Amino acid sequence: MKIFNECVPCLMRQAYEAAKMATDNLNIQQEILKKCAILISNFTDYNSSPELAYHMHNTVKMLTCNNDPYEDIKKKDILSALKLYPYLKKILNDKNNDLYTALKISAIGNIMDSAIFKDLDVMECIDHQLDMDFTICDIEIFKKDIVKAKTLLILGDNAGEAVFDRVFIESLPENLKVYYATRHAPIINDATLSDAKSAGLNNCSTLISSGCMTPGTVLKDCSDEFMDIFDKADIVISKGQGNYEGLEDYSRKVYFLLKAKCDMIANRFSVPVMSYIFKLSR
Amino acid sequence: MKIFNECVPCLMRQAYEAAKMATDNLNIQQEILKKCAILISNFTDYNSSPELAYHMHNTVKMLTCNNDPYEDIKKKDILSALKLYPYLKKILNDKNNDLYTALKISAIGNIMDSAIFKDLDVMECIDHQLDMDFTICDIEIFKKDIVKAKTLLILGDNAGEAVFDRVFIESLPENLKVYYATRHAPIINDATLSDAKSAGLNNCSTLISSGCMTPGTVLKDCSDEFMDIFDKADIVISKGQGNYEGLEDYSRKVYFLLKAKCDMIANRFSVPVMSYIFKLSR
Repeated sequence: MKIFNECVPCLMRQAYEAAKMATDNLNIQQEILKKCAILISNFTDYNSSPELAYHMHNTVKMLTCNNDPYEDIKKKDILSALKLYPYLKKILNDKNNDLYTALKISAIGNIMDSAIFKDLDVMECIDHQLDMDFTICDIEIFKKDIVKAKTLLILGDNAGEAVFDRVFIESLPENLKVYYATRHAPIINDATLSDAKSAGLNNCSTLISSGCMTPGTVLKDCSDEFMDIFDKADIVISKGQGNYEGLEDYSRKVYFLLKAKCDMIANRFSVPVMSYIFKLSR
Repeated sequence: MKIFNECVPCLMRQAYEAAKMATDNLNIQQEILKKCAILISNFTDYNSSPELAYHMHNTVKMLTCNNDPYEDIKKKDILSALKLYPYLKKILNDKNNDLYTALKISAIGNIMDSAIFKDLDVMECIDHQLDMDFTICDIEIFKKDIVKAKTLLILGDNAGEAVFDRVFIESLPENLKVYYATRHAPIINDATLSDAKSAGLNNCSTLISSGCMTPGTVLKDCSDEFMDIFDKADIVISKGQGNYEGLEDYSRKVYFLLKAKCDMIANRFSVPVMSYIFKLSR
């Protein structure tokens, strides 16, 4: 998905948030802002927001000599989510492992996004989020697909979210081979292989790196190994806005599972902002 | 006041708002955003936000061939304020022309700022704003100053705000000579001479242009005529954030009358954001 004019102020805000996250040194923050503003001035050179965001966050990393500015936030998010894990399992158990609820839990994980929701208390808002229905939900098609499927690939998004995805994966039929793809290197608060392991995903899925380092799956940057799994998987579920923005224009069928956190994405799906979406691509 | 790192995302947002205000053409909006991002990338070259904002809004004007993108908004704001005028007069009359209330009415006018509060219904919020006290109020010093003063210069801010300033000016002693300074040319929703006239200020004050075109009084850009009045006036009242940002470092005594609309300004005065301030400079 191309970068819209509306995305520009948001990208600048994200650059500033990342700068503050990575360093307390005001002069270095200033340098980051200047360099990111230059990158943003060329926003039409990029095919999607994740591609530009990659260069912005790389600037943050280089100028702060900090390869993982969101490391602490990610650890905190995973820990918060792991505390919720027994509660999420109980909810799903009480609903007899209902697929809609399992998908919903995975989607709720998408609120664990420090890049957008600062200082969110997931514990506090979880019940309200569980009460919200999907605004778009292609579950009937998915139910048919999953009966036939032998392999499922999930494109992970944020670190804390991986725990919610684990609850979803653990609810799936045991004979389904599940791959869980993460970013190749730390970028914002997105899950890496190491984060996915901390979330406990190695016990219920095969963890793979997408090979790409953008905060969203940009296929031209992905590894051959990943592309092979991506192309051959019977079902692909893409989590979150970043992956959607990278994949929207690609031809294979993908289920997009996300919360629409901004007007641009909400408009794209013709839903109100903050809606939950589970939608099969055209 | 220098431009802080915190101001950068806000400036980018303002550039986008101005672009949308000036044109519906997405390609021109895009060009505005690109050029403003380059300007913003050099934010440390500017002494204050108003100086950078001037160049940003000039970019908007040039690329849209629209010298006054906020013309309609300003007209609407002045009209809304004029509808409130009898109500404001009555309130002040009921309080026996009390100076604190008069200052407060002038300060409340500062919320008529389309650059910050979009779609604000002033009618709806006026009583609540009237109930809020000043967080800082140097009224006791001002009372002594105004008894001795022969001339008062008010540095105007937004167009709709001028009507509120009129209520304040009309409450002052008749022997006090009042100058009301506006921007030299349209910039954002700031009052020009023509806007001040529409607000009815020509009946109670001598209208002058500051000679400068920045959204805030930047003295080095002001006319000699204005500087003469500025230097000689017994009292100067500076309205709003933009004027404060331009004047903070200047030596003469100035009363700053404003609502602190952002964290940076609030921090500068050590008050909570959205506080009302009437403060004599050091």
